[in-house]
Amino acid sequence: MSFNALPAHVWPRNARREEDGSVSIAGVSLPAIAEEFGTAVMVVDEDDFRSRCRDMAVAFGGGEHVHYASKAFLTSRIARWVAEEGLCLDIASHGEFLVALNAGFPAERIAAHGNNKDHAFLHALVSNGVGHVVVDSHQEIEELNAVAGSLGIVQDVLVRVKPGIDAHTHEFIATAHEDQKFGFSLASGSAFRAAARAVELENLRLVGLHCHVGSQVFDAEGFSLAAERVLKLYGRIMDELSVGEEFHILDLGGGYGIAYLEKETPLDVVGVAQDLLSRVEKHAARFNVPVPTIKVEPGRAIAGPSTVTMYRVGTVKDVTVEDNFSRRYISVNGGMSDNIRPALYDAVYDIRKVNGLTQGEEIPSRVVGSHCESGDILIHDQKLPDDIATGDLVALAATGAYCYSMSSRYNMMMRPAIVSVKEGQASLMVRRETIEDYLALEV
Amino acid sequence: MSFNALPAHVWPRNARREEDGSVSIAGVSLPAIAEEFGTAVMVVDEDDFRSRCRDMAVAFGGGEHVHYASKAFLTSRIARWVAEEGLCLDIASHGEFLVALNAGFPAERIAAHGNNKDHAFLHALVSNGVGHVVVDSHQEIEELNAVAGSLGIVQDVLVRVKPGIDAHTHEFIATAHEDQKFGFSLASGSAFRAAARAVELENLRLVGLHCHVGSQVFDAEGFSLAAERVLKLYGRIMDELSVGEEFHILDLGGGYGIAYLEKETPLDVVGVAQDLLSRVEKHAARFNVPVPTIKVEPGRAIAGPSTVTMYRVGTVKDVTVEDNFSRRYISVNGGMSDNIRPALYDAVYDIRKVNGLTQGEEIPSRVVGSHCESGDILIHDQKLPDDIATGDLVALAATGAYCYSMSSRYNMMMRPAIVSVKEGQASLMVRRETIEDYLALEV
Ligand SMILES: Cc1ncc(COP(=O)(O)O)c(C=O)c1O
Ligand SMILES: Cc1ncc(COP(=O)(O)O)c(C=O)c1O
Repeated sequence: MSFNALPAHVWPRNARREEDGSVSIAGVSLPAIAEEFGTAVMVVDEDDFRSRCRDMAVAFGGGEHVHYASKAFLTSRIARWVAEEGLCLDIASHGEFLVALNAGFPAERIAAHGNNKDHAFLHALVSNGVGHVVVDSHQEIEELNAVAGSLGIVQDVLVRVKPGIDAHTHEFIATAHEDQKFGFSLASGSAFRAAARAVELENLRLVGLHCHVGSQVFDAEGFSLAAERVLKLYGRIMDELSVGEEFHILDLGGGYGIAYLEKETPLDVVGVAQDLLSRVEKHAARFNVPVPTIKVEPGRAIAGPSTVTMYRVGTVKDVTVEDNFSRRYISVNGGMSDNIRPALYDAVYDIRKVNGLTQGEEIPSRVVGSHCESGDILIHDQKLPDDIATGDLVALAATGAYCYSMSSRYNMMMRPAIVSVKEGQASLMVRRETIEDYLALEV
Repeated sequence: MSFNALPAHVWPRNARREEDGSVSIAGVSLPAIAEEFGTAVMVVDEDDFRSRCRDMAVAFGGGEHVHYASKAFLTSRIARWVAEEGLCLDIASHGEFLVALNAGFPAERIAAHGNNKDHAFLHALVSNGVGHVVVDSHQEIEELNAVAGSLGIVQDVLVRVKPGIDAHTHEFIATAHEDQKFGFSLASGSAFRAAARAVELENLRLVGLHCHVGSQVFDAEGFSLAAERVLKLYGRIMDELSVGEEFHILDLGGGYGIAYLEKETPLDVVGVAQDLLSRVEKHAARFNVPVPTIKVEPGRAIAGPSTVTMYRVGTVKDVTVEDNFSRRYISVNGGMSDNIRPALYDAVYDIRKVNGLTQGEEIPSRVVGSHCESGDILIHDQKLPDDIATGDLVALAATGAYCYSMSSRYNMMMRPAIVSVKEGQASLMVRRETIEDYLALEV
C-alpha cells in the first residue's frame, strides 16, 4: 500500500521500513526511540543533514560559498556539524551568534543579519571577529562604523539590497519586494547610497552585496532575476566608487524549496546553481565586471528533510461534518507548540504510521494537536488509513526547518526532546523541557 | 494630541500620562521599569487584573461561577491572584494543572479541559482532587472511569457539547461548529450518548454540560443561542437519565471580546451576563427544568487589558512603496516571538510612545520586530507620529492574553521579563529568559 511507503524525496535519506513494518532512521528504530526518549520527539538524521551540507557545497563550488541559515534549526551540535562540513553560517540575532560561538563555530565564517541590530549585538559581532555584517539600514552603517572604530577594527560588510522581486511564495516569507523591513531599495538609489557611505567610512570595508528573494521558492527565475538586478548595482559600484579586490561577494540568500508532500518536487539545487553561476558570468560580462564570488544561505533545504517529529496517537474521533461526509480527527501529543507552520503558513506535511504497517481504507482525516484551540491542526485534510489507532506512533517528515526554532510552550506544553541518529546509534541532542524549566523563570 | 491619550477601554485601568509626558501604570513609571528590568518587558497592572476578576464574579453572581481560562496567561502569581479573588480556574493541559497546583490553587476549584488527555494527565487530575473534568470523547469517558475506579474515587464530569454555532470570529478560534476536534455533537445524538454513558459508569458523576462558542466574540446572540441549544439537551438528560441534584451546571465557556483599538468597544459583560441569566431562566421554564448553575470561562477579558508590552525603538526606516506613498518602518526589540497574534490571527494593537509626548505629524507606519522574517509585524498599518525615534520607548496595550502564553524563542530571541505593578511598586514576576536557559537543555 502506498501509505506504507516513505517517499524518498520527503523523508530523511536513511529512513527505512523494517521487516516488522516499523520505520527506522539510520538503523535506529523509531519505536525504540519513543520507548527510550518518550514522545513527542524530534529525530534528526545526522548523515542526511551533513550530506545536504556537502551537496550544497559541491553545487556552489565549496563550503566557503554556503552559509547555513541557522534560523531554520540551530543547536550547538548542529553548528558543529556545519563547521565540520566546511560550511559557513548565517546568524540573524545576538542569540544565534552566542549559540554559534558557544559551539565553537569560527567567527570569521559567520555572516550576521538583522533589521534591528542593537549596540550590544554590533559590539559582540565586531569584537568577536565576525566574518561580515550584512548592513540593513543607514543608521546601522553609522553605528557599526562607530563600534568598529571604538574597537580599532575595520569591519567587512555586505549591503543588503531589495531587488524588488516577488518570488511567488507565501507572503510572510517573501522578502525582496519593496514594502518590507529588510534592506535598501535598489530602485530608489538607497542601496547605492548605502554602499557609497560604507566605502567612505573608515572602519567599514565594503566586500559585497546581499539579497534574499524569499523562502520555499520553486521558481528559479526569481534567483536569476535578483542576481541580474543586483549585479547591475555591483557594476555601478565598481565604476563609481573606489573599491578594490576586496569587493567581490554577491550573496543571493536562501530560499531553496523542498518537498513536503509526495507529489511535490524539491527545487533541483544543482541545476539552479549551475544556471545561476552561468547567468552571473554572463551578466558580469555584460556589465563589464569581474565575476563575483557567489554565496548562498540555505536553511530549509539543509535542515528540513533531515528531521521527523514523532507523536503518540491519543484520541481518535469521527466527526459528521455534513450529511454524507464524516471526517476522522486523530489527536497527537504535541501540536501548534512544536509546529506552528500549518497554523501560521498553511504548511502541509507528510505523515506515516511508524510502529508498523497499515492495512486500512483511506478516509478523510485531520491530525490535530492537544492544545486548547481549534486551529491547532497539524494536517488539515488528508486521506489516511482508518486503522491508525490510539497508541500508534506517527511521524511527520521534513520538520527540521522552522519547527523547533519557532516552538512555544503554549498551554504549558513543554518542548519535545531532539535526538540525533547515526549508524545505528541514537544520541540525545536537546532534552525534553519540563515544567521545572518554566518555573525556574518565576521569581 | 489624540496620540498622547491612553484610551481607557484599551489600556490598563491604572495607566496614566504623567506631567513629564511619560506613562505610568499603578504609579510606576514605565521608563523606570525599562531602566530597572530592561526591554522588551511586559507590565501587568495587578489591580486591573484583580478588578476584572471581581467584575466577572459580580456579573455572574459570584466567583464560583467564573473559571479564569489560564491558557490566556498563567504564572504562579497570577494563579494566586485568581485564587485570592475567589474565582475558579480552567486548565487545558497537564502542564497548566501542575503550574496551578504548584501555586497552591485549590484543586477542587479547577476544571480540566483537553481533547487529548492522556493517562498520566487523567491520573493526576483525579488523584489530586480536581473539581471536574470536562470530558471530550467517548474514549476519554471510559479511560477516566477506569482511572477513577483504580483510585476508588467518583469523579465529577461535565460533557462538552458542540452546539453547532459559528460565532463570527476568526476561524482558528471559533470552536462550536461541527467540523472541529472538541466535544460531542448535539445534532448527531453523540452528546446525549456521552451523557448517558457518564451516568451509567460507576466512577463518574455527571454534574453538567459545557460548551464554548469561540474567542473574541462580540455577538452576544452566540452565547444565548448556544445556551438555548444546550439547555434542550439538559432537559432531555433530566427527563431520560437518572440524574439527581448533582446535575446542575451549565458551563458556557469563555470568549468575551475586548477592545484592542480605540475605536473598538469591548463586549459589555454585565449586560451579556444579565441577558444570559434571564434567557437561561426563560428557556429552563420552557423546557421545564430547574434553572441550572451558570458557569463561564473568560480568559482574554480578564488578562488581556491588564498588561502592556514595552519595547525600545531601534531602526527607523522610510520605505517608498509606490510613487506617491511611503511607509515608515519602526523596528522594536521584540516581535513575533513575544507576540505571534498579528502574524497568526491578523490581530491589531494600540501602540503609544511611553517615555514622553509626541508632537509629530501622523504618517503611515508599520511596527516590526527584530526577527529574520518579513512577516514579523506587530502593527501592520497605522498612522503614527513621525517623531517617534530610535531610543524611544513604545508600548502595545492589551497584550495580557495569548502573548506570553504563546511566546517562542524564534531566532534565539529570549522571552521578555514580566513585571507586576501595584500601588507604586514594581515586582518582577517572571525573569527574562537567557541563552543559558536554552543551553541548559542541550546535552
Ligand atoms: C536573509 C535570509 N537568508 C537565508 C534565509 C533562509 O531561507 P531558507 O531557509 O528558505 O533557505 C532566510 C529566511 O528567511 C533569510 O531571511
Ligand atoms: C474551552 C475554553 N474555555 C475558555 C476559553 C477562553 O476564551 P477567552 O480567552 O476568549 O475568554 C477558551 C479559549 O479558546 C476555551 O477553548
